Amino acid sequence: MSDAKRIVVIGGSAAGPKAAAKARRMDQNAEVTIIQKSPDLSMASCGYPYYVGGFFDDRNQLLCTPTGVTRNPNFFLNAKGITAITETEVIAINRDQKTVTARHVATGEASEIPYDKLVITTGATPLMPPVPGTDLEGITTLQSMRDADYLRKIRDDGTIKKAVVVGAGLIGVETCEALHLANIDITVVEMLPQVLMFLDWEMAKLVENHMRAKGAHIITENPVAEFLGTDGKLTGVKLKNGTEMPCDLAVVATGVRPNTKLAAEAGLEVGERGGITVNAFLQTSDPDIYAAGDCIEIPNRITGKNVHAPYGDLANLEGRIVGQNVVNGPAVTFPGTFQTGICKVFDFGAGATGLSERNAKAAGFETVNVVSASPDKPGFMGGKLLVMKMVAEKSTGKLLGVQCVGPGDVSKRIASAAMALQGGLTITDLTVADLPYAPPFSPAIDNFIATAHVLENKMTSRMTGISCRDVKAKVDAGEDCFILDTRGPDEFDQMRLGIGEVLIPLGALRKRMNELPEDKSKEIICYCKISLRGYEAESLLEAHGWTNVKVMEGGIMTWPFAREK
Amino acid sequence: MSDAKRIVVIGGSAAGPKAAAKARRMDQNAEVTIIQKSPDLSMASCGYPYYVGGFFDDRNQLLCTPTGVTRNPNFFLNAKGITAITETEVIAINRDQKTVTARHVATGEASEIPYDKLVITTGATPLMPPVPGTDLEGITTLQSMRDADYLRKIRDDGTIKKAVVVGAGLIGVETCEALHLANIDITVVEMLPQVLMFLDWEMAKLVENHMRAKGAHIITENPVAEFLGTDGKLTGVKLKNGTEMPCDLAVVATGVRPNTKLAAEAGLEVGERGGITVNAFLQTSDPDIYAAGDCIEIPNRITGKNVHAPYGDLANLEGRIVGQNVVNGPAVTFPGTFQTGICKVFDFGAGATGLSERNAKAAGFETVNVVSASPDKPGFMGGKLLVMKMVAEKSTGKLLGVQCVGPGDVSKRIASAAMALQGGLTITDLTVADLPYAPPFSPAIDNFIATAHVLENKMTSRMTGISCRDVKAKVDAGEDCFILDTRGPDEFDQMRLGIGEVLIPLGALRKRMNELPEDKSKEIICYCKISLRGYEAESLLEAHGWTNVKVMEGGIMTWPFAREK
Repeated sequence: MSDAKRIVVIGGSAAGPKAAAKARRMDQNAEVTIIQKSPDLSMASCGYPYYVGGFFDDRNQLLCTPTGVTRNPNFFLNAKGITAITETEVIAINRDQKTVTARHVATGEASEIPYDKLVITTGATPLMPPVPGTDLEGITTLQSMRDADYLRKIRDDGTIKKAVVVGAGLIGVETCEALHLANIDITVVEMLPQVLMFLDWEMAKLVENHMRAKGAHIITENPVAEFLGTDGKLTGVKLKNGTEMPCDLAVVATGVRPNTKLAAEAGLEVGERGGITVNAFLQTSDPDIYAAGDCIEIPNRITGKNVHAPYGDLANLEGRIVGQNVVNGPAVTFPGTFQTGICKVFDFGAGATGLSERNAKAAGFETVNVVSASPDKPGFMGGKLLVMKMVAEKSTGKLLGVQCVGPGDVSKRIASAAMALQGGLTITDLTVADLPYAPPFSPAIDNFIATAHVLENKMTSRMTGISCRDVKAKVDAGEDCFILDTRGPDEFDQMRLGIGEVLIPLGALRKRMNELPEDKSKEIICYCKISLRGYEAESLLEAHGWTNVKVMEGGIMTWPFAREK
Repeated sequence: MSDAKRIVVIGGSAAGPKAAAKARRMDQNAEVTIIQKSPDLSMASCGYPYYVGGFFDDRNQLLCTPTGVTRNPNFFLNAKGITAITETEVIAINRDQKTVTARHVATGEASEIPYDKLVITTGATPLMPPVPGTDLEGITTLQSMRDADYLRKIRDDGTIKKAVVVGAGLIGVETCEALHLANIDITVVEMLPQVLMFLDWEMAKLVENHMRAKGAHIITENPVAEFLGTDGKLTGVKLKNGTEMPCDLAVVATGVRPNTKLAAEAGLEVGERGGITVNAFLQTSDPDIYAAGDCIEIPNRITGKNVHAPYGDLANLEGRIVGQNVVNGPAVTFPGTFQTGICKVFDFGAGATGLSERNAKAAGFETVNVVSASPDKPGFMGGKLLVMKMVAEKSTGKLLGVQCVGPGDVSKRIASAAMALQGGLTITDLTVADLPYAPPFSPAIDNFIATAHVLENKMTSRMTGISCRDVKAKVDAGEDCFILDTRGPDEFDQMRLGIGEVLIPLGALRKRMNELPEDKSKEIICYCKISLRGYEAESLLEAHGWTNVKVMEGGIMTWPFAREK
């Protein structure tokens, strides 16, 4: 077997084992070796919050194949023909000799392992805020099996009553839910003005409101200034504004940094976003070295600019590409990412794909956007609300991004949107999409298509939209506009904004036009529950001569601010 | 208002009211009139089976807006500004005078109603088998509010114990479930060799097996020969093969025929598929007359050939197009359909989009296809099985169609596939799709992407697949092949095919190669639960010199035939 190709993979979490397994299947004669620092292999790390939250109890499920076989070195050898060396750290890549220097973590024993093709899948490390006290006992991340074990034990012990989650990104939000389910009083602290930065502000605000409704405390625009402690143990978190929050536990989830030290020390190129630079073949600046997963940066498929996208699904897809290319040479390409993401937040899903309005503008796009709301199934099948935001390029009508939040089936709509982005579809294309319809699964016009309809109405000036945020700003500024709620009196009794609106139900509007402003140029803002009746009202008023009529997009269901009722 | 455009819509179910409402919003000065034969308007007809099955009890929910307002003529007038005339049938279109002749159903009183633009949305009528006895009491369809009321009363009365559903298409299958939930012993009779003709046989068979497991009786390839009765009442159904099945109720669901009589009598063109012919603007052969919904035929977006696609979602989308074109002239186009469909079948979803293998071949495509199976989420989140079939064009690798069945989330995968078809994506494109991943929603590599991976492996000859059906044929023919089950002994104890297979777990295969055929050219067929380990086995055996190794696609979970255990 002296002519066997030696393929060495540094890192055994997601991208690494996938690359190794694919390479092995492509070349049964190769010697494939995984070198992994931690004792575990192929951990389902995205499952940690659900283990901590008690969605399941058997820790082994994070480390097993679907049929219950633990993915340990034995499994890799017997089932896959792959040598997996665990608890061993690669401390140097010696590109001239084409070897890596590996050191056993416990014994310190070092060895040189030769490679023909090397794969770097070293992942990413959680960022810690640069403040005093981060080494106190009681501060953790949720990034490793060890972290998961630590937090699960806290759940099972039931002694900790108050915790702070620092950072309201994906992992912060998931951790908040997990600890809340462990009966711990949770405060989430975020330095930015909102949770879940992949959403635009008004969408994130709906998620934040839901988290509060579930009992979590959320503090935004307020960075952590210091972790407070006594005798080396955490006792509280102090914020920049001086607030001190007593707690026994702090989970830091303020993002991750690609692990590029090894690559950089070997002279491999590292990009502006902090990840190892790779070409479309996922090849580093050394053609014999590939990289994949959380340690690299890849192009956003809309802007073409590199981003750091540490998602488990991408790591697997990249690993599969690398596995092919280390065997056959650079042939298969990875096109990058739409930065599609989703998370469960209590009873809400929250997801996005493509560009948010904020990111689209930052990338130089002139956009048209709309927020819409509707149930995800017919009412008689128990439909649940979905709020969707769609962003398109103004000049071409091309879809740029979709965000979706709510108790309804978010995941299906984001998946549909991701495929629409991949196909380069326009809003007009989406208005005639052919999605699967039956009452147990969706409304006759799916939310995704319905949102495209509203955006098309807006783009063709059939509808003049105004965001809830802009309405709030007008009200706060005391602007003189006529706000028209077109719902029924019973709906108004149950829930209302209380921003000076006048209630005239749509069905009565034709007969009660005398109650509207005499000045036909006065600004009128119409809405209802989801602004379908609001839109009907706009058409009607315009037909009767009012010239400055707008629809508050998404209606009362997407109002992110406090309501009178 | 003498210059107001007169828009008349014949039919008030789905496409009609949508066209009317859109036209009204586009032109608040138009006179918009809907003429509807039945007493009801805008019925959620796709909801009938769920009303009959007791998923909800309030009949009004089928006729109400989401806020509970009944869509009666009053609602249409006050909320929409549309005149809706119910219980009135249009009996003639007088194209020269540009009028329609309408007749009140009860009084017979006739009137002439003038139009500038006419919209035909006359829907479709259930087909009845051309056999004796169809007029017996106890035979119904499930197509109208009246039918739904009749069957719901049967449910509520609880007196009928045995029923036959004739036809195993979408409505037949939904009706089967509905009546089963009403504690009625159900037999479904289908003249074709399978249920749900939008699926290929082996996929439909999995659905059929599930229906049987739930207690329904299914008889295929056996048409109804006669409805039997005494004193005008149904007593049984007789099949062509002579079988007589006593029953008190028969629901006929053998498809629908577009209602084109009115159009044809007015000299409008009717197509080969039996629907009114329309151009891309949904304009009939008379430019002042548009048509939409179940009464027209439209192009399949892959073959370009016309099909009859009586789906509620398409009716709504078409209505929206027509509503624009009757106001602005022919400007907006409807591109046709991927014939995307889905239904709930007890605990299964069953859906498809694009072409099945059968339809692709009939349309002249040379295809590559694969069946795969995997859970729709990680095991620790309670993933449920999905079986997916993917069909692609051999020469271009372009996706042609996807079918999906099982207890998992079928709807999301069919929605993703429908968008992929609309974008014209290839299998290679799908292998790097960026779908939303988090454990509560999907596995790290979504089933849709995983299936594309398997198909790509097959297309690039990394994997040689064989369908379960072909394996069964080989076994039945007594062909000399070596069948290798690569699962674990415990899995084998729980469930096995019993077709002469040899059990060698994948993890032991490297050490037990001496148990394999000495003749390296002998055909070996590998499989496991979902044929991932089967695929590993193929790679391994080929590397060890066996030259005729195949993987049974989808593994034991997609075996549609009886098993030993």
